[in-house]
Amino acid sequence: MNSENTAIQMRKGILEYCILLIISRGEVYASDLLDELKAARMLVVEGTLYPLLNRLHRAGTLSYTWKESPSGPPRKYYSLTPPGRHFLDELTSTWNDIDSSIRLIMAQKTKNDEQNA
Amino acid sequence: MNSENTAIQMRKGILEYCILLIISRGEVYASDLLDELKAARMLVVEGTLYPLLNRLHRAGTLSYTWKESPSGPPRKYYSLTPPGRHFLDELTSTWNDIDSSIRLIMAQKTKNDEQNA
Repeated sequence: MNSENTAIQMRKGILEYCILLIISRGEVYASDLLDELKAARMLVVEGTLYPLLNRLHRAGTLSYTWKESPSGPPRKYYSLTPPGRHFLDELTSTWNDIDSSIRLIMAQKTKNDEQNA
Repeated sequence: MNSENTAIQMRKGILEYCILLIISRGEVYASDLLDELKAARMLVVEGTLYPLLNRLHRAGTLSYTWKESPSGPPRKYYSLTPPGRHFLDELTSTWNDIDSSIRLIMAQKTKNDEQNA
């Protein structure tokens, strides 16, 4: 059994959630977004992030504006659209459900361990 | 943007993790497993659970024994194999990473909110 595949599947939906969470704080430059995802150990590479940002933009979840850069070409800054904010709220509710499901199952384990001790 | 698809993706890898967590406590009858997943709000149906159990069994992660039932036909009781326990340990480590990634990103949000207050 390839545990790596299951682990990748566990991370996949969560990555999209993390991206939207970071962008929900205000305008974000893609490269800063990548740095923060790496700092949070989401282990994402540019080749994964950019197509995902494009997809979220095409879906109307994100918008962007161009801003001048002190050095080099202008930069795209992303922010959430109102439908994107609604989408994020739904994912937050899914995350809370998943988190509490796992906590419930873990708590049950501890209870059994205590009964068997 | 269909938030339901992303939510389903978020749950998919986690479901397998929850199943292994429950079975790791000791022998489990599939129907009791289903009840506990439902109680933990994993919202899973028999049509999802049974193929997943078969797949985990074929992969050498689970084994089962038949036990007589007080009423009706004998029942399959599932338990983890040693490779299955190793697999579960790896998924637990992935789960801990995901959980701490989201906590880090959430904490950053709170920090920004405080700075802007």
